[in-house]
Amino acid sequence: MPALDVDALLRDLTDQEKASLVLGGDFWHTAAVPRLGLPAIMVADGPHGLRMQPAESDHAGIGGSLPATCFPPAAGLASSWDPELVAEVGHALAHEAREQGVSVVLGPGVNIKRSPLCGRNFEYFSEDPHLAGELALAMVRAVQEGGVGTSLKHYAANNQEDDRVRVSAEVDERTLREIYLPAFERVVTAAQPWTVMCSYNRVNGVHASQHPWLLTEVLRGEWGFEGLVVSDWGAVHDRVAALAAGLDLEMPPQHGHSDTAVLEALASGALPREVLDRGVRRVLELVARAQPTLDEHGSDASEPQAVDRHHALARRAAAAAAVLLKNDGDLLPLEPAAGTTLAVVGAFATDPRYQGAGSSQVAPTRVDTLLDELVALVPEGVEVRHAAGFRLDDEQPDTALVQEAVALARDADTVVLSLGLPAAAESEGFDRTHLDLPPAQLALLEAVAAVHDRVVVLLSNGSVVRLSTWEHLAGAVLECWLGGQASGGGAADLLLGRATPGGKLAETVPLRLEDNPSYLSFPGDSQRVVYGEGVFVGYRGYDHRDQEVSHPFGFGLSYTTFALGRPAVEVTGSVAGGDLAVEVAVEVTNTGSRPGAEVVQLYVEDVEASVARPDRELRAFARVHLGPGESATARLRLDARAFSFWSEVLGRWAVEAGEFVLRVGTSSRDLPHAETLHLDAPSVAPPLTGWSSLHEWLADERGRALLEEVTASAPGGGGILTDAQMVTVIGSMPLETLAGFGQGGLDHATLVTMLERL
Amino acid sequence: MPALDVDALLRDLTDQEKASLVLGGDFWHTAAVPRLGLPAIMVADGPHGLRMQPAESDHAGIGGSLPATCFPPAAGLASSWDPELVAEVGHALAHEAREQGVSVVLGPGVNIKRSPLCGRNFEYFSEDPHLAGELALAMVRAVQEGGVGTSLKHYAANNQEDDRVRVSAEVDERTLREIYLPAFERVVTAAQPWTVMCSYNRVNGVHASQHPWLLTEVLRGEWGFEGLVVSDWGAVHDRVAALAAGLDLEMPPQHGHSDTAVLEALASGALPREVLDRGVRRVLELVARAQPTLDEHGSDASEPQAVDRHHALARRAAAAAAVLLKNDGDLLPLEPAAGTTLAVVGAFATDPRYQGAGSSQVAPTRVDTLLDELVALVPEGVEVRHAAGFRLDDEQPDTALVQEAVALARDADTVVLSLGLPAAAESEGFDRTHLDLPPAQLALLEAVAAVHDRVVVLLSNGSVVRLSTWEHLAGAVLECWLGGQASGGGAADLLLGRATPGGKLAETVPLRLEDNPSYLSFPGDSQRVVYGEGVFVGYRGYDHRDQEVSHPFGFGLSYTTFALGRPAVEVTGSVAGGDLAVEVAVEVTNTGSRPGAEVVQLYVEDVEASVARPDRELRAFARVHLGPGESATARLRLDARAFSFWSEVLGRWAVEAGEFVLRVGTSSRDLPHAETLHLDAPSVAPPLTGWSSLHEWLADERGRALLEEVTASAPGGGGILTDAQMVTVIGSMPLETLAGFGQGGLDHATLVTMLERL
Repeated sequence: MPALDVDALLRDLTDQEKASLVLGGDFWHTAAVPRLGLPAIMVADGPHGLRMQPAESDHAGIGGSLPATCFPPAAGLASSWDPELVAEVGHALAHEAREQGVSVVLGPGVNIKRSPLCGRNFEYFSEDPHLAGELALAMVRAVQEGGVGTSLKHYAANNQEDDRVRVSAEVDERTLREIYLPAFERVVTAAQPWTVMCSYNRVNGVHASQHPWLLTEVLRGEWGFEGLVVSDWGAVHDRVAALAAGLDLEMPPQHGHSDTAVLEALASGALPREVLDRGVRRVLELVARAQPTLDEHGSDASEPQAVDRHHALARRAAAAAAVLLKNDGDLLPLEPAAGTTLAVVGAFATDPRYQGAGSSQVAPTRVDTLLDELVALVPEGVEVRHAAGFRLDDEQPDTALVQEAVALARDADTVVLSLGLPAAAESEGFDRTHLDLPPAQLALLEAVAAVHDRVVVLLSNGSVVRLSTWEHLAGAVLECWLGGQASGGGAADLLLGRATPGGKLAETVPLRLEDNPSYLSFPGDSQRVVYGEGVFVGYRGYDHRDQEVSHPFGFGLSYTTFALGRPAVEVTGSVAGGDLAVEVAVEVTNTGSRPGAEVVQLYVEDVEASVARPDRELRAFARVHLGPGESATARLRLDARAFSFWSEVLGRWAVEAGEFVLRVGTSSRDLPHAETLHLDAPSVAPPLTGWSSLHEWLADERGRALLEEVTASAPGGGGILTDAQMVTVIGSMPLETLAGFGQGGLDHATLVTMLERL
Repeated sequence: MPALDVDALLRDLTDQEKASLVLGGDFWHTAAVPRLGLPAIMVADGPHGLRMQPAESDHAGIGGSLPATCFPPAAGLASSWDPELVAEVGHALAHEAREQGVSVVLGPGVNIKRSPLCGRNFEYFSEDPHLAGELALAMVRAVQEGGVGTSLKHYAANNQEDDRVRVSAEVDERTLREIYLPAFERVVTAAQPWTVMCSYNRVNGVHASQHPWLLTEVLRGEWGFEGLVVSDWGAVHDRVAALAAGLDLEMPPQHGHSDTAVLEALASGALPREVLDRGVRRVLELVARAQPTLDEHGSDASEPQAVDRHHALARRAAAAAAVLLKNDGDLLPLEPAAGTTLAVVGAFATDPRYQGAGSSQVAPTRVDTLLDELVALVPEGVEVRHAAGFRLDDEQPDTALVQEAVALARDADTVVLSLGLPAAAESEGFDRTHLDLPPAQLALLEAVAAVHDRVVVLLSNGSVVRLSTWEHLAGAVLECWLGGQASGGGAADLLLGRATPGGKLAETVPLRLEDNPSYLSFPGDSQRVVYGEGVFVGYRGYDHRDQEVSHPFGFGLSYTTFALGRPAVEVTGSVAGGDLAVEVAVEVTNTGSRPGAEVVQLYVEDVEASVARPDRELRAFARVHLGPGESATARLRLDARAFSFWSEVLGRWAVEAGEFVLRVGTSSRDLPHAETLHLDAPSVAPPLTGWSSLHEWLADERGRALLEEVTASAPGGGGILTDAQMVTVIGSMPLETLAGFGQGGLDHATLVTMLERL
């Protein structure tokens, strides 16, 4: 069809039609205006696979949908630390979306994992905003390269499921800017997602759907967002306020409710026409953007072989998503000899848990099981036997099942124990309350470990489980997260050495839930949650409190080994010039005997800062794949932002002059190389006023001179400045307050003179 | 002089005179109006001893003052857990105030020790509001029984010295109500202090001196405060706004500045006359209240023998303030035999640190030293020898001093090592940044412990120091806090068994600073501090995170032993009736061979609550002094408040029906007795609305019935309620949001009908 003429449409639409357009047409479509030839376009859930529901459906996330490839959800993909892999998945998603006539895929989700308890963590990437931002960027670019839109979500500060519609996230601006917004900012500024989806929750008391600062001031004003803001499904409470704040499209439509409110507000003048037109224009622009792809591909353009190709990609992604947490005595990879038995224990081996529940749930095109894939891959003469060991729907141990599993294990050469969280334990819609595996599984592990010393534990879970109570019982632990429909194949490839683990933790595994920095204030109550730990989220908090953890952020073993050379740091440009560029080159060598990938990680520390900053923050990473004995140079680039903090005093990003330490290594706690860098930068101190403290005046050259001059003329001479103890005690007082005491040569009149002279 | 006629004065005062009266006359006096016979009255710092500065002085807290008895500061007094002792000190303070013509003593301070780093913790009682409130109440009652006023301070949320004038304490109402305000509330409602002093800081963005909610709504409206609100010295920024908020008296006066502003605002109408009159009336009432005492006692009425009597009381208080933290093998009390040598090592033994620096600093009438007092008390034939071991003004070890001390220690029978924080380490005006003793002292301890296994460590410090790194080196540890001018005598009495330690920790000693619940957000920056740990302050936080500590809140050893019988719980009245009374009777027996005191502590736990509540909270305590073999019954009383939390939803205190556990013992972590109590109480759930969640509707009998009825008629029957997984996933959504989806029999129209039928 011909390209849409947005301006003409805007001119010809009636108010009634306009009011209908800022609401969807139905649950999964925008509204059409047949009179003017404006078609509807379709959106579908699908951060890790399309969820396109058939016309007759309950729509609410539980009912069935049409088959699509289920890739590993974000928690798994993120552990790959591999933007290229994420892009491959994105391309496949776009392909399937085009085939189905879907114009916008409702993902990815870049919310930060504030607590491991969040029920939707499986849909999110990381506890670190840099990692989340880079991976989501790869996804958005790839999907949109395929002519399909994305919806970057859930904007913003939606970090729990508990009371998610009503709860107000009470979070200071610096924490928002440094932790909860940067992944959004990165994707918006670098890739212009077609849409951004607002979250359900309130942010500092205001619904995200009606938040002018978030939706307009920051998103468009500062980041230059040009797309459309869509509501999360049901997130709009006051359609008119939402429009005014910058929420363009309400989903699903509340026909006869929201459109009526819009028309009434238009009539009364409460809603300026240009505000409505702005929303309508963005809907029209979205449809116009989607049109070429729809024209090119019919919804019947399905390609049968894509199913196989995408399943193979899903299998590769599943293997890349797994993190090898422990591998004592190189228990893995398994090299089963003919005549031996491999025991595969655990209900997940035949009934895999490979995705999370809720709106992102995909109807897979097929599903691998670990058992089948191992049977298919083991060398001839190796017997693979299975015992369930526990029931997925029963938390408590079943003695008969445990005994059966123990008997099987006792006679086997090696035991692979497939454990994890059952579907009922984590889902969109509610948060967990603890990190433990179900008692039935822990009892099974203990019983099996009591008779066998070659136990490999495979984990299937969407967010962190506690390991510290049982990890010593296993010789190897492979965290597979939720691996998508090919999780069984991916795990089998890793177990048998057909693939080498290269995943790294995108979230810390703490020793105990109580150690998590958000523990004292998660998930809040009374419709409010205070982000009390501030910027000290995830490893930033564990590090700052110098807490031991089970496995640190960034950690993951391989079947091979790597050595990192000393980093070479090259600085060009300057902070003042706005062109600071720091390049860190690190030589990486595969010192082992297998091909594999290492992730070089670069963390920055501001040695001395005027605000409380994390001990180290991930600012760059590079994935390097090397054959045995091979070397390559990883190049990591930093700009001024990598050194800056959000200054609430100045209302902008600021680099404070002084020493910075660049640490390079392979996890947040394995950073053998530290290079110190001195950066010059303009002062971040605000201009002196009467409200500036004595310390601040003394730290300023002109301020100190003035103070010395004024107080020297005091009776006795020297006044308050001559007594060091006195200065320490009153140093944090504003000069105004000290002037109020009228002593030591300083009073209100003197202060006025001083300020004039400054 | 005749009693003041406040009404007549108010009538006769000119505006100019009124404006002068809401400011002080000078640094330490209210303004006089000689024309009308209105005298000035004098106020003086003095929470633990009068600081009356001579007329010619720098006034700012560093300069000298007239001699007065220096009792242990609040940190020490609080460790006695002994309201009767605190009252004795209060009576003595009133006596000295009357002698000096001081009408109002500027104390006590009941701020909560949010962090052990707060530089002014030595002036505050506890990390627990109940303990702080009860002890401050005893002090205020006693001083005011003596005809002298008090100033309950610093109101409110002033829990750090860092940037104390500018910083905004960002703290939610429930945390204020449950942690930071109750000690103020207890004293105001039970004892009507003559004055309350506002703090320097801002509270949620508003200066405490200009905070209508704090100064008027809560203080007067809810608690019924009848006295005067005075500013902390220099805390007023906008005199007119402060007056309007309820700040009656500004100190020190900003003559020509604040009074001008008041007169201008009065003229322009910005300041209603009745607001000014209200402040003036309170100043007049304060003067009238002070007058009888001033008439009775001249400023020359000093009683020489009071100096001795008060010094003896200070000595008793110093002993009561000390907490015996460790006493392996009953190393204490010392029973030195004739012919042995007692080594007394440490600079504090001859140069004691017995009070903190800043506005509370007292010029003592005399000062005991530990060395002198030990020499005076040891039996004949015992040699007491001293070595300094370190220099107070040098953090780093001095090898010669250490060697001298080691040589002395090696030949001694027992070593008493007097360690602590030098004056420069903690003071009003700044916060500490770590909890460690200076390296010089730790080096000395290690060196001495290497040659001796009978080492007693005495500590002098105003707030908690870290013990975990060195406690194993000492056989006994006696925490003496800052013990006042007789600290040396008090410590000697304890060491030699002339007194028995009975002090209990009023603040937790953590293993590490990083474990403190406020660690991630203390002291904030950029003029803001987020109280991120909420109600989980002190032991509430350590307990909630199940963290090991060095020594728990409430802990303290004795030279004798005690046994607690099983508590008998008697409940009368009811929550609904407003007359709930719970009495817990506990038999305490001294099972050792010396007289001594035990503190029976009662903690309450709400087993299941709709808000996150601490695992246990101190709600009552009783100190029992018993001779060897004696028994007595401690009776602890609780009312409904002891079971309640502050409901932000209801805007009031609320008891939630259900199980409560009463735990009785002798520290927050030694609670051998637990009695479960079931309390009935009216529902604390707010009425159902469209904003109530599905879970809340289902928890309400009528709500559930309506929902079942409505959804049963949906196509398919039963609608959303028939699918348990669905209910779990959408359960926290407001019904209004679910109605917006228009599915399962629920839409906006149905919801309106349901709400009407409710």
